Amino acid sequence: MKVDLLFTWKELQDAELKGRVVVVIDVLRATSVMVTALANGARTIHPVEEVEEAIAFKARHPEVLLGGERGAEKIPGFDLSNSPLEYGKELVKDKELVLTTSNGTRAITGAKGADRVLLGCLLNATAVAEAAMASGKDLVLANAGTDGAFSMDDYLTAGAILERMLSCGPVTLSDAAQSALLLYWSGAVEDLLKDSLHYQRLQSLGLAKDLRYCLAEDMLDVVPEYRDGCIRAMGSASARSA
Amino acid sequence: MKVDLLFTWKELQDAELKGRVVVVIDVLRATSVMVTALANGARTIHPVEEVEEAIAFKARHPEVLLGGERGAEKIPGFDLSNSPLEYGKELVKDKELVLTTSNGTRAITGAKGADRVLLGCLLNATAVAEAAMASGKDLVLANAGTDGAFSMDDYLTAGAILERMLSCGPVTLSDAAQSALLLYWSGAVEDLLKDSLHYQRLQSLGLAKDLRYCLAEDMLDVVPEYRDGCIRAMGSASARSA
Repeated sequence: MKVDLLFTWKELQDAELKGRVVVVIDVLRATSVMVTALANGARTIHPVEEVEEAIAFKARHPEVLLGGERGAEKIPGFDLSNSPLEYGKELVKDKELVLTTSNGTRAITGAKGADRVLLGCLLNATAVAEAAMASGKDLVLANAGTDGAFSMDDYLTAGAILERMLSCGPVTLSDAAQSALLLYWSGAVEDLLKDSLHYQRLQSLGLAKDLRYCLAEDMLDVVPEYRDGCIRAMGSASARSA
Repeated sequence: MKVDLLFTWKELQDAELKGRVVVVIDVLRATSVMVTALANGARTIHPVEEVEEAIAFKARHPEVLLGGERGAEKIPGFDLSNSPLEYGKELVKDKELVLTTSNGTRAITGAKGADRVLLGCLLNATAVAEAAMASGKDLVLANAGTDGAFSMDDYLTAGAILERMLSCGPVTLSDAAQSALLLYWSGAVEDLLKDSLHYQRLQSLGLAKDLRYCLAEDMLDVVPEYRDGCIRAMGSASARSA
């Protein structure tokens, strides 16, 4: 089984995805939000690229909750920001959500040519690695990136997921994947990230609690899957009936 | 001073280079060959993209030496392969060379929109870092890559050059540059590279001596500069009169 890594969502445009499983990673914070919301009982997440699409969706379906960010901040008129700490059971259980984020949503919809699209972060590192390896197909870890550029937080998360893949069975890693794994092995994630752009931006916005939460490894075993325009938990009743 | 890093020569197409100094890195083996040839007294190197161009050049100027590779092997009819160990004083002193390589040449010619284009490898890590920092301009480390894809050898070389830049003065590193530096700091270069594609390919071709030579740090203080289609040693009489 071969594993490659893409540095930003832009690389998805030219990547060969057919016959492969893609794991989309936007650890700060889109995929961490999605894993959390589904773990807390949200039924379905609709990822949309534009704020206007989200608002139009709610006009047709007033029961949905709107969440997301622009410039890491809450969007006016939305129910929820992009903080996973807001997506508690009391708010999201059995709900449908519509989410739009700067990079994560683009990476998810950009991966639609793949055989399957799974969503990963540090919270579900082991769960997503096991699900991807169980597919028996070649894998692509697709980092969302920040502002369209490489982001160290996604890269280290890819390293964490790769470590778990290695313990599932034999894999052949591209140089990009090997480098992510070696960097992950070189120290504590939060120490490595302390001068990185996205980490510092969230710190400066007073989101230290979000950072601590998103950087916790293997807290949840939900694996979100994107299919037919929707994200649902793999193995959930709604996913099976989809 | 800001420092960014590009993962392959393909990224040069969309990169903003105006007003910046680019350091092109193809440590295995194009920029190692060029640094070695100039250190051994070669006067000028003409980088060309196609084999046919090199052959046509020699037809017009029979005194030049042709060097380069395709698939890491010597090109039929050429005087020299892409092994730096062949570019000794007795052969190259006062000579003009024409070189064509799979990735390195494309990275060099692709950087021509920059204010200055310098060539770096591990052999001249300190010298190229000091020359780049002395420019006072924002810097871009452009990894050539292998087969158009990310290559760990160039990435670690960027890390080595970044370490030397840090000791010259204050720099602000992009996430991509930070990651290269952190990976370089995490262990010995040859240990980190042992499973990487290009390292293994050269090993399997029996080029272990080339690898050992190219991975030696700070052996030479020549800084090649690409200008007006030619590569010359910075500060040499021929560069000054160019």
